[in-house]
Amino acid sequence: MFLAKALLSGGSGSGRGGSLARGLGGLLTGGGHGGNLGGLVGGLVNLISEAAAQYNPEPPPPPYNHFTNLREILNKVLSRHQDLKTDGFSLDTCRSMVAVMDNDTNGKLGFEEFKYLWNNIKKWQCVYKQYDTNQAGAVGRAQLPEALRAAGFHLKEELCQVIMRRYASEDGSMDFNNFISCLVRLDSMFGTFKSLDQNGSGQIKVTIDDWLQLTMYS
Amino acid sequence: MFLAKALLSGGSGSGRGGSLARGLGGLLTGGGHGGNLGGLVGGLVNLISEAAAQYNPEPPPPPYNHFTNLREILNKVLSRHQDLKTDGFSLDTCRSMVAVMDNDTNGKLGFEEFKYLWNNIKKWQCVYKQYDTNQAGAVGRAQLPEALRAAGFHLKEELCQVIMRRYASEDGSMDFNNFISCLVRLDSMFGTFKSLDQNGSGQIKVTIDDWLQLTMYS
Repeated sequence: MFLAKALLSGGSGSGRGGSLARGLGGLLTGGGHGGNLGGLVGGLVNLISEAAAQYNPEPPPPPYNHFTNLREILNKVLSRHQDLKTDGFSLDTCRSMVAVMDNDTNGKLGFEEFKYLWNNIKKWQCVYKQYDTNQAGAVGRAQLPEALRAAGFHLKEELCQVIMRRYASEDGSMDFNNFISCLVRLDSMFGTFKSLDQNGSGQIKVTIDDWLQLTMYS
Repeated sequence: MFLAKALLSGGSGSGRGGSLARGLGGLLTGGGHGGNLGGLVGGLVNLISEAAAQYNPEPPPPPYNHFTNLREILNKVLSRHQDLKTDGFSLDTCRSMVAVMDNDTNGKLGFEEFKYLWNNIKKWQCVYKQYDTNQAGAVGRAQLPEALRAAGFHLKEELCQVIMRRYASEDGSMDFNNFISCLVRLDSMFGTFKSLDQNGSGQIKVTIDDWLQLTMYS
């Protein structure tokens, strides 16, 4: 998101939801800090290779992360996880994930952005498996509020209901693709608000230009 | 979107982007104003039947509009339009369309909401065909800014670029599904801002609860 980037003083890719990122720190190791293109590409290849190896070894992915490549990378890893019972991420989910995490609005994820996303997906897939209590390939309606809390989001009932209407299927259950898509956006929207509410007043002022940038690139 | 509904005084389904709706008025006729459930369902069936008949006659659709039903209805009509060169609307596009237009947040579109959406799709598919200059099944990168203007949106270059990154494919072209999905959201976000900016100051104040409701249900 453009505005978040613009308002984050010296914000790197990890600016959004930084506290959560720090809380998750250390789930993955390796890689530099993306200070230059060579380091970024090299770090990204290292990072993905290492992460994939934690599941099952994969050949290194292409060294860039447009949403089609992101989808290819993620689904290649997921395809080895039969226990997740998922057909993988949809193209639209990957479009959305790139948009909400693309702080420099270049249409791709840099090293830190990808690392942050990857760490969260790893964390949230554990939550998903924990709450897919019937091993049906979805978190049921009754389990969803608790699953969202376990993922780190203590939401008001009304917001929880709205999220379920947007991301759950007609029977109220949520599959892996939508579960992760929802959480990535939720985490990003919390982070964006926090970055805009610099004085911690609990209220932000937004112009029409900012509003459209924030809501259209998400 | 919940907040838009809450802040629109006595807002009906046509509250969002009302001026645009009025500008488009009369593209479809028939149907009442949805004052009660019977009238709404009857009006919806009449409306869809009439609209479908303008393309090719179809059996009447189910009398409700969850996103899976919306997709079924819209794609049934689109399947008769070979000149659009589209595989139809994706499930995520339909989820998003329902969310951004669902003023009473019941997860479905009422009569006025569906009518407004339908009128816009009809209008924008004409724009799409006009700017799919190579009949390739997509509006090319070079034509997109002008196509967005023709659809009623005079956007700054920066926003235009961001929208293309979110909705266009890697070569910069935009297919019918993404073109309509983008315009439905854009129209809704303009309308939501307008409804929140009641004194016309060009700036809105948003709390964290409102922010999450607005951005998660879209």
